[in-house]
Formats: sequence, C-alpha cells, structure tokens
Amino acid sequence: MRTPLSAALLAAALAAMPTRAAEPLPSWNDGPSKKAILDFVAKATKDGSPDFVPPAERVAVFDNDGTLWAEQPVYFQVAFALDRVKALAPKHPEWKDKEPFKSVLAGDLKTALAGGEKAVAGLMLATHGGMTTAEFDETVRDWVTTARHPTLGRPYTELVYQPMLEVLAHLRANGFKPYITSGGGVEFMRVFAERVYGVPPEQVIGSSGKLKYEVRDGKPVLVKLPEIDFIDDKAGKPVAIQKHIGRRPVMAFGNSDGDFEMIQWTTTGPGPRFGLIVHHTDAEREWAYDRTSHIGKLDKGLDAAPKAGWTVVDMKKDWNVIYPAPK
Amino acid sequence: MRTPLSAALLAAALAAMPTRAAEPLPSWNDGPSKKAILDFVAKATKDGSPDFVPPAERVAVFDNDGTLWAEQPVYFQVAFALDRVKALAPKHPEWKDKEPFKSVLAGDLKTALAGGEKAVAGLMLATHGGMTTAEFDETVRDWVTTARHPTLGRPYTELVYQPMLEVLAHLRANGFKPYITSGGGVEFMRVFAERVYGVPPEQVIGSSGKLKYEVRDGKPVLVKLPEIDFIDDKAGKPVAIQKHIGRRPVMAFGNSDGDFEMIQWTTTGPGPRFGLIVHHTDAEREWAYDRTSHIGKLDKGLDAAPKAGWTVVDMKKDWNVIYPAPK
Repeated sequence: MRTPLSAALLAAALAAMPTRAAEPLPSWNDGPSKKAILDFVAKATKDGSPDFVPPAERVAVFDNDGTLWAEQPVYFQVAFALDRVKALAPKHPEWKDKEPFKSVLAGDLKTALAGGEKAVAGLMLATHGGMTTAEFDETVRDWVTTARHPTLGRPYTELVYQPMLEVLAHLRANGFKPYITSGGGVEFMRVFAERVYGVPPEQVIGSSGKLKYEVRDGKPVLVKLPEIDFIDDKAGKPVAIQKHIGRRPVMAFGNSDGDFEMIQWTTTGPGPRFGLIVHHTDAEREWAYDRTSHIGKLDKGLDAAPKAGWTVVDMKKDWNVIYPAPK
Repeated sequence: MRTPLSAALLAAALAAMPTRAAEPLPSWNDGPSKKAILDFVAKATKDGSPDFVPPAERVAVFDNDGTLWAEQPVYFQVAFALDRVKALAPKHPEWKDKEPFKSVLAGDLKTALAGGEKAVAGLMLATHGGMTTAEFDETVRDWVTTARHPTLGRPYTELVYQPMLEVLAHLRANGFKPYITSGGGVEFMRVFAERVYGVPPEQVIGSSGKLKYEVRDGKPVLVKLPEIDFIDDKAGKPVAIQKHIGRRPVMAFGNSDGDFEMIQWTTTGPGPRFGLIVHHTDAEREWAYDRTSHIGKLDKGLDAAPKAGWTVVDMKKDWNVIYPAPK
C-alpha cells in the first residue's frame, strides 16, 4: 500500500521530470547537431504533426565501431582476435611459421594486418571457429572484463561515447527502438550490448559466421564454423536491416563510408528521415581521421552529407565529454 | 478531463477483466493440452516462483504452416507461386515448354510438384526473383486479398487456427514475445503476419532469397535475387533463431518434423521449458495426417514427444473451433 511519504516522493519525482526531459543530451554542446537530433525527435513524436512517426515505425539504426565506441588503433574485435591468437598459440604450434599468426605472436601488428580485411577475417575465423556459441560467449565475457585498451588503459567497454549513450536513452524515452547494425561480429557485440548500450540481443545485427546445430552427447549445441556467412558492411547493411527488421528505419547513425548505404537507404524513404555521421575531429581527446584513414575511412559520406541533409557531428566542437567517467 | 460517465465505464471495464483473464483459451477444450499451456504461463510469470522467467527471456517461437495456419493441399505460399506462374506466363513464352512451368500452366499440379522441394524452390525463385521488396510486398498483399483456398473457398489468411490466435494473445498478455520461425519466405509472411497474428515484421523469421541493394535512377531499392540465401527448416531453425534473436526461446510450437530441432533446442535449455506439437487428427473439420504425409510429415516428433515432455495437441479432441468465424 502506498504511504503518504511515498506519495510525496512520487509527486516530487514527477515534478522533477520536466527539468530532466528538457535536458536530455547534456554531453552535447548547443549547436546544429544537438538541435537537429532534438528537433527530429520532437516532431516525429508530436501527435498530429505532419512528421509524426507511429511508435511501431520508430526504428533507429546505429553503427558500432567509431559511432558508439572507439575504433582506434584497431577495431576492438581485432584486439580480441589478436588476444585469442596468443591464448590459443600453445594448441597451434603450426602458427609459429604461418602468417598472419607468426607476426601476431611476434608482436608485429603492422605485418600481421597488412593483408587488410581478409587477414582480419582469417584471424577471426581461425580463433572463433569450432567453439559453441555458449563457449564463445563466455570467452568474450571474460575478455571484456580483463582486457585493457593499449594506450588509454581502460576496459574497451568503457570507451563508449557518452554523448551517444544519451542519444540512445533519449530515443528510447521517446518510443524509438534502437538497433545496432555493425560490421562487427553479432555474437561478439551481443555479449555486452545490453549492459553497455541497453540494446538487447535481438536488436543487434552484425557480421556473422556460419553456425551448425549439433547434438553432442545428447546435448544440443550451436557450433561456430570457420566460414563467413554475412558481412554487414556497406551495401550489406540495408540488406541486413531488411532481413532482420523488415522495416525501413527512420533514423541512421554512422561514422564511416561503411555506413553510407545504410544512411542512404534510411534517409531516402518517404516521410521524415534523419541521418547522422560522427566525424572524428578530436585528435586530443580521441582521434582525428577521415578521408584517408585505413580504419573508419569517411570520404563519400562527407561529400554527400550537405546535399542529403545529413547531420555531421564535429566531435571536437559538439561533444563536451567523450567517454563516461571511469567507474 | 475524465467525466463521471467515463469513470463509470472504466470501472465497468476493469470489473469485466478478471472474467476474461480467467478464460484465455475459449477455443480449447479442457484437457491436458490446454492445462499444460495455462500451467506453464502461470508458473513462468509468477514472481518468486522457482520457474519464474524474467520478461526479457520470455521468447516463444511458432512455426507457421500447419501450426498457425493450414497447409493443405499445398503450402499456401506454393499456391501463391503457382498463381504467379500463371500471371507471369505471358511474359515468359519459354515456360510453355519448360517444366515445372509447363505442368503448372496445364493445371497438372501433380507433375508440376513431382520434383519435391527443389521444384517448389525453383518456382518461387523464378516468380519472386527480380522484383524489388516493395513490388513483392504489393503483389503478396494483392494475392492475400483476392485468392481463395481451392476447397474451402475462403481467403488464405482466414484459414488460421483460432485456438492458436488465442495462445498468441495469452502469451502477449503475459509478457511473452512471440516469433514466427517458418520454412516459409520471410518477405511473404511479413505482409500479413502483423494483421493476422499480431506479430510485427521484426518478429518474423523465415527462409529467404538473397537481396541486392541498388540505386535505380537515384532511388535506392532492394532487389530479390533468384538465389536461395537460407532455408529455415529442420536444423536451420535453431540456427536462424540464434542469428535473429540471440536468445534461446523458452516455448516452441510446431507441427511437423521440420520443427523437431527447434523444439529440441528450446526445450533442452536450463530452467522451465515448453514444447508443443499440433497433431493434425481432424479429417472432418481440417485434415488428418502425420507419419507418411508428404506435407507436414510428423514422425520423429510423435516418437520423441512423450519422453521429452512435449505437449501433443489432438486437434480433433482439443480444439472446439478450427478457424475464426468468416467476416
């Protein structure tokens, strides 16, 4: 039963709400980026507005690497795969003489990753394949707890962008359903996406290896095969969105040209649409890179944004905080 | 502002609720099947119960053909594909001399489908491929409005099982999230799943063809390629569930051996689990078929059910209504 005291507390809480609702993006400096996000959400949720979006259609898609968390000096899942190579090396004596494993074990990252995306995919398949999904889940869980970023010294899952966490929260508070749509591995991201971003497993879309259903000693398992199933990047992103969600999103957030088609697909549908690119401009607090970067290259998107009406976030200018305070 | 009249109506509505909640499955006769469903939902949602399932984990998966709607004399999507062959024939003069199109056009269904699953897949790819997802959506929408079942004379979307609609509603009312996991095409089912079953597009998992993202005259489209991407049947079902949902369901509903692995995967996890097979036993009101049927063969499942603790619905005995009343 509600006591008079709890009723008073409830009233106080309700009275406090408008204030909090009026400042949903505290880590964003006032300016066109912040205004664009707030204005879009306001008009899309205003009943009777010509730009009203019914709750079921409020789908927002987010890239992960470079959009929700950092991606330098290597994609964090690559760091995980490199750590896996080291952990698994005793069981694979043949890796001593075989690239890219040889260079990984010698600490020569440049040579190890010289083969580009293909080398990275090979590392992931070799280190992730053969495990059951449950074993893989446990390995990732372990890694995100113990591994530290090489220069920042913090757990990778703390290197998420505080301003983007606030966007996720603001969207959820307004009936939007945020999905992650990333080139990263879906099984990898699902381990921490709910805890870190509040995004449940069924709203995580990513690249994937093939899976095989097996009954081992009477117990069903799903085994990760060392074979690529789907690469969720570039033109693969709209495809994955259609397959997984079956609705065209109304908001899309990315940072690199790998997100170009996702933002294009999202923003060219009928009705109100919103596209945003996080431009990494802050060499001091984070990293500054775009048109010529090997990781997170942003070239086509920068050229297309003004004409397409996409918001380009100037990280240095628009964000007053990058990462959440250490816990 | 609430008037005294609306307050009275509200009170009346609230007073009526317990009655409705007490009889959530009116089309089910009293018996072990109905009891098993109600008991499971009751214990899974009872706070403090050892079998309590947290709301986020309340995932239920349903096969479609033969579980949520009928599947005789041919899977309804096959009927759609046959109708598409006829509609597209003028544009494909070569079909006159090419099987299985030749037999479809001559009305010889037996010869047309003699090639089994492969022939059916070929028909679907030939008739669905090349369209954009938007065009396909419109074509299906049209078909479900105009086509009629050959012997029952009703629209296919009215040949859904009323008792299963009640299960879906009961689960939703108790915080479960029902997914469809069917061998049928995902793009096909999504057109009507929300209207007919209350299952939104993002909760529909099915077989799929490959998609291609293209910009046509400056306008992005997703094109259906005449190439299979994934067959969501048998051991493919747990794989699709993992890829799409990333959680192991706690309830699974199927009718044929194509659902065996899905029910097995669901019911062998830790904690409370529920598996159900719809056994087609009603030759008068529906169809009676199981171990030797070409469509919806149920053999392995019937043998495994008693030991596995799966509920086997005797359609003739357990259901007092099959289809919803005609509108």
